[in-house]
Amino acid sequence: MLLAEASEVLSEYVQHSQQQDTTIFRDKPPEILRQELDLSLFPEHGVGKSEIWHDVRTICATATNTWNSGFLYKLYAAPTPIGVVGETLLGVLNNNAHVFHASPAGTLIETAVAAKLAQLAGFPSQTAAGLTFPGGSYANLHVLMTARNERFPEIKSAGLCAVASAKPVVFTSCHAHYSIDKAAMAAGIGLDSVVHVPTDQSGCMDPVILRRMLQDAVDNGQTPFFVNATMGTTVLGACDPLDAIADICDEFKVWLHVDGSWGSPLALFSGDTMTPTFKIPQGRINSLTINPHKLLGAPLQCSFLLMRDGLNVMRRALGLGAGYLFHADNPDATDDSGSLDLGDATLGCGRRPDAVKFWLMWRYYGTQYFVDRLNHARRMALQLADMVVQRDPNAYGQWRLVSKPQSTCVCFWFVPQWLLVSGREGPDFDESLDLATRKICNRVNASGQLLMDYASVDLFKSCSSSDDSCQKTIDNLVKYTLPAFFRIPLNNPDVTKTTLVAVLNSIEKATRELYKDK
Amino acid sequence: MLLAEASEVLSEYVQHSQQQDTTIFRDKPPEILRQELDLSLFPEHGVGKSEIWHDVRTICATATNTWNSGFLYKLYAAPTPIGVVGETLLGVLNNNAHVFHASPAGTLIETAVAAKLAQLAGFPSQTAAGLTFPGGSYANLHVLMTARNERFPEIKSAGLCAVASAKPVVFTSCHAHYSIDKAAMAAGIGLDSVVHVPTDQSGCMDPVILRRMLQDAVDNGQTPFFVNATMGTTVLGACDPLDAIADICDEFKVWLHVDGSWGSPLALFSGDTMTPTFKIPQGRINSLTINPHKLLGAPLQCSFLLMRDGLNVMRRALGLGAGYLFHADNPDATDDSGSLDLGDATLGCGRRPDAVKFWLMWRYYGTQYFVDRLNHARRMALQLADMVVQRDPNAYGQWRLVSKPQSTCVCFWFVPQWLLVSGREGPDFDESLDLATRKICNRVNASGQLLMDYASVDLFKSCSSSDDSCQKTIDNLVKYTLPAFFRIPLNNPDVTKTTLVAVLNSIEKATRELYKDK
Repeated sequence: MLLAEASEVLSEYVQHSQQQDTTIFRDKPPEILRQELDLSLFPEHGVGKSEIWHDVRTICATATNTWNSGFLYKLYAAPTPIGVVGETLLGVLNNNAHVFHASPAGTLIETAVAAKLAQLAGFPSQTAAGLTFPGGSYANLHVLMTARNERFPEIKSAGLCAVASAKPVVFTSCHAHYSIDKAAMAAGIGLDSVVHVPTDQSGCMDPVILRRMLQDAVDNGQTPFFVNATMGTTVLGACDPLDAIADICDEFKVWLHVDGSWGSPLALFSGDTMTPTFKIPQGRINSLTINPHKLLGAPLQCSFLLMRDGLNVMRRALGLGAGYLFHADNPDATDDSGSLDLGDATLGCGRRPDAVKFWLMWRYYGTQYFVDRLNHARRMALQLADMVVQRDPNAYGQWRLVSKPQSTCVCFWFVPQWLLVSGREGPDFDESLDLATRKICNRVNASGQLLMDYASVDLFKSCSSSDDSCQKTIDNLVKYTLPAFFRIPLNNPDVTKTTLVAVLNSIEKATRELYKDK
Repeated sequence: MLLAEASEVLSEYVQHSQQQDTTIFRDKPPEILRQELDLSLFPEHGVGKSEIWHDVRTICATATNTWNSGFLYKLYAAPTPIGVVGETLLGVLNNNAHVFHASPAGTLIETAVAAKLAQLAGFPSQTAAGLTFPGGSYANLHVLMTARNERFPEIKSAGLCAVASAKPVVFTSCHAHYSIDKAAMAAGIGLDSVVHVPTDQSGCMDPVILRRMLQDAVDNGQTPFFVNATMGTTVLGACDPLDAIADICDEFKVWLHVDGSWGSPLALFSGDTMTPTFKIPQGRINSLTINPHKLLGAPLQCSFLLMRDGLNVMRRALGLGAGYLFHADNPDATDDSGSLDLGDATLGCGRRPDAVKFWLMWRYYGTQYFVDRLNHARRMALQLADMVVQRDPNAYGQWRLVSKPQSTCVCFWFVPQWLLVSGREGPDFDESLDLATRKICNRVNASGQLLMDYASVDLFKSCSSSDDSCQKTIDNLVKYTLPAFFRIPLNNPDVTKTTLVAVLNSIEKATRELYKDK
């Protein structure tokens, strides 16, 4: 009854949100929004039904509108309607996938979907397995802890200091997600023992430098135990060269994890043609993170950690076998339901069976939907990049692509005209462009019709100068920071060329308005 | 449209599930359930609507029924209908509470609800704050990491081995949740450096022994930095003596965390009268975990970590300030929205704004609902304990209470008659009772009409014997393990005396059937 009424209120919201002229983000100070939401009111007695729908409508109006094709702000977009049904189903079932008997359907669906994804990733079918986690960061955290405890089993009981002399060290690219740093920090490895490997100009980890850095670490008495490669970096959407990295990890006997939270669906579903660099070297990586809540449209959150060699690796590394919960001693067990108690392979306890919503999506749409969705996003990305390259300079500024998009994320600048005529390019130019991008982006977002983001990355160039101000990372490489640029991740299947034109027009318009007196 | 149809299918399921004779758990092998769920079928093209509602119905039929008052299996029960609406709302909004602009409503609701809970916990209103986490284990993990990095700030960069000589050590009771052990293991502290403090006979940490163990650790050159006390232990539902523990933590200058994942609502909402030992010493604990998805009926998951001294403690300890995401340098920021980017205070990135569903519950039902719900659960627990004590021994066995319930969890044995007449009590008796409890419980569950669990705990007794087989924990305390007993957590507001009678009758019936030839 309550749910039926809710479905009316929410359907109305969704229909309204998808319309072209709908506000995506209301740029109001938190204090005003707090008042609108009546956040000081914790009633002694319930407010009743009509008031609660008023609350729900206010929450919807105060939320960020992810249903509109103008939501280009983050690596996810509108949730699929059947995914929302999945969320509701999870809420209704209230099943907890920590032990099998508390969530038989959720557990079986999770193990089946994870095994299927792991097989698509090229893991051997006998051991291909995985688990969901509440986000890619937690998946990455768990796999780093697992790799640590597998390499140094004594850590589990004796602690990290028992292997202090081994100096465990982690490798990841400069463009990798910060969750790798956080995981290493949490694990007690320390941020100083996370080696950030420089990338090439397109944001891909340089394998030659990785090899040198690994060798340097070994020569310095450190023990590299974990290399994280990224399939779809957070900002540029680049894919590290996995084949070459796998060779190196073989040589140094290091766990190779691929953080494909964002980009791995391109490898698993879209085939070689659209994004040929997004390819997993068959059976040569130890683990993979994939977030169907990003490119595939599952509602937040739906993240899998896929393991090449099965879940027992995690159970051994992280499990405690708490007897009060996991009844390994069940006198009546006649089947594998004990090994289906998934919770002990994690650092958590209660687990939401998030795989169910992805399973429903897969059933309702079929594999081809994922393929089409990814290919559409890729085509839109290529089209936007083309538009940026081909759009003529005009009275307000000039368009520049940061790099050719490797996947579905497009990064570019709009250099205001006053900056172009202000003199030659250099540090001052970069600083001004950086500020201009951020101010233009904020102004576009304040209009409420589009929501986009800016970002920056560090890159490297050769430096043979002996100038001390060159901050050398390895040999003659010098790190420099790009001025902030617009980063547009394509994802929503409703995005069309009209959306892309609106993006560029809005940036020009905001620039004109911002700098009309310049 | 899809959601409207779903609400019909799911409402039908809920109505059916609440009926008295409905199956709660289908005791079938995973292989059979896998076939029913058609888990080998990942279709190339979508299966269409009618098939998807068939799938949803099959999932419901294969799930564990948490709506029925006979679901007494875990520390949660039926979700509230408005909570389910909250899940649906979260799915529809698809807002991500890592940064404010991606989830303005979710962020503001989370900060407001967490602040309110923290104030109810007696934290000073200027700093009382908190965050949601995907479960109490992750809340505990985060606070342990925070306390570690606050006590030893050099760990963040230099790693744990930089403070190896300090020998950091964690204290928690023998009855605490395993997530404390897992968190310490993850943090690199190691399981050997988790000191498990013995409890008294009712499962409460013994503060005299805690003090001795802390002193011993200091004398041994270790550095105690974290004491976890439990408000509502997982098995017995006991509350550690927080006032005495707070005194000791003051003396040793140790972070005092209270894991109230399950039991803290009794302190925050139900007042002193029903569970007088559940009381938080005003402003004397550093942090508190509370899971509204347990005693308060929010759908899984809804967990808060509440911080006495504000969120900046966590930002300082765990934050990295990733610039691409958290725009601390926003040139147009005129308000506090930067500090409302909640993600950087956690080890995660994307975050589901779970507080929204609890806020809707609070608004719809009012505070009094929580009070009434808790008081009802407590009354049912007292009533079940009374029934166990007063129920006459009969031809099938004898009832024994493990200990007087301190909160809403009742633990007891039913000792089969054949065991009573088999001779005097001792190790053999205990072993037989342990096996009998587990077999009886499985048989009750196999009936499908009730779902309950068994558990065991370690307790301690004085031992002045010099026998070497006495495994001494501290001085003359000897640990022993209770034979498995039935553990019935009360929670569902629909539980009545009829449910309780059914529990006891079912146990007698299962015993009779199991041992009819004995």
